Amino acid sequence: MHVAIPLYPRYTALDVVGPYTVLAFAPGFTVTLVAAEPGPVVDDQGSLAMTATASYAELPRPDMIVVPGGPGTAAAISDQALVGWIAAAHQHTRWTTSVCAGSFLLAAAGLLTGRRATSHWGWVDRLADFGAEPVHERVVTDGRIVTAAGVSAGIDMALTLLAESTDVSTAQTVQLAMEYAPEPPFDAGTPQTAPANLIKPALALIR
Amino acid sequence: MHVAIPLYPRYTALDVVGPYTVLAFAPGFTVTLVAAEPGPVVDDQGSLAMTATASYAELPRPDMIVVPGGPGTAAAISDQALVGWIAAAHQHTRWTTSVCAGSFLLAAAGLLTGRRATSHWGWVDRLADFGAEPVHERVVTDGRIVTAAGVSAGIDMALTLLAESTDVSTAQTVQLAMEYAPEPPFDAGTPQTAPANLIKPALALIR
Repeated sequence: MHVAIPLYPRYTALDVVGPYTVLAFAPGFTVTLVAAEPGPVVDDQGSLAMTATASYAELPRPDMIVVPGGPGTAAAISDQALVGWIAAAHQHTRWTTSVCAGSFLLAAAGLLTGRRATSHWGWVDRLADFGAEPVHERVVTDGRIVTAAGVSAGIDMALTLLAESTDVSTAQTVQLAMEYAPEPPFDAGTPQTAPANLIKPALALIR
Repeated sequence: MHVAIPLYPRYTALDVVGPYTVLAFAPGFTVTLVAAEPGPVVDDQGSLAMTATASYAELPRPDMIVVPGGPGTAAAISDQALVGWIAAAHQHTRWTTSVCAGSFLLAAAGLLTGRRATSHWGWVDRLADFGAEPVHERVVTDGRIVTAAGVSAGIDMALTLLAESTDVSTAQTVQLAMEYAPEPPFDAGTPQTAPANLIKPALALIR
């Protein structure tokens, strides 16, 4: 199973590395970071660059794509090299997926019309502007299109897809290897559980 | 608050990017990836490189260090440039921390003698060989030394430290921005909860 994760300026690093870690740990999976051109691509904080090792043209038919989000999606939505690659790759994928605002790039590629999909809680409802049906869940599967909620949700999505693609034991083995038994010190990960006065500052951090 | 995360060959990417995301999102925090020399450093899967933007010599006195783990720790433990930097930086840090097998690099720097510390479940008990007291918890604080369990535990550690360094509201705001309300599809993240026959294959994945 060959997984491609596209990088564009100002992606969110954990949107990439959450699913990457789950899938790259899995036996028989290869993950490649791709971009318009090979080379380092800088994240949304300006302090972390990951290296794309292949161009879009070099990897036209991956079995799975994982499109990350980040403040850079606002510009990337008009990046025809990226959006065109997503649309073309989707014709042949087993799974076409996104994390956080990456779902807006799937929408820009025309893939979410009439489909159930999610995104970060801050802008999931805007998916309706693209003809999608916004769903407030952590991982949403509609056929072979799978979208995850904000940033950290990519880990849960990747484990779910790994179980679907192989078997539950393989996904559990990876979960155990990553010691993914989360113990968040606070219960503030959603707007329903966080103190209401933190919603505005949280959105300011990620815009 | 200036945070430094050292990269060495065959680190585990999520050990870096979990804490990075929490801390780089936080107002007033700057995170720098460091290495022996600036440039790309390849991870344990051979398929992801992150760029170190400063050498150890260029960042001798960060306020906080986060030492990642990975199969590369076996070699890194003899890397005097890295271990010497950890020992020297610790003299001035507010927090000296590690994720997963990164605690063995703290131990090699002489920092864990007589201290409570943790690591990945697969080798936490070997910390006793370095004079540390192994603790089977997800995040262990002993004075200003804080160690996290395997791979994904760095997220929980960083949120805990962010609350200690600023206040609970700031940590909750970052948690909300990251939508960190985990929903693992399986309960297999520890050897106590995973099927017993998965322990050996899980260790094989991460060695």
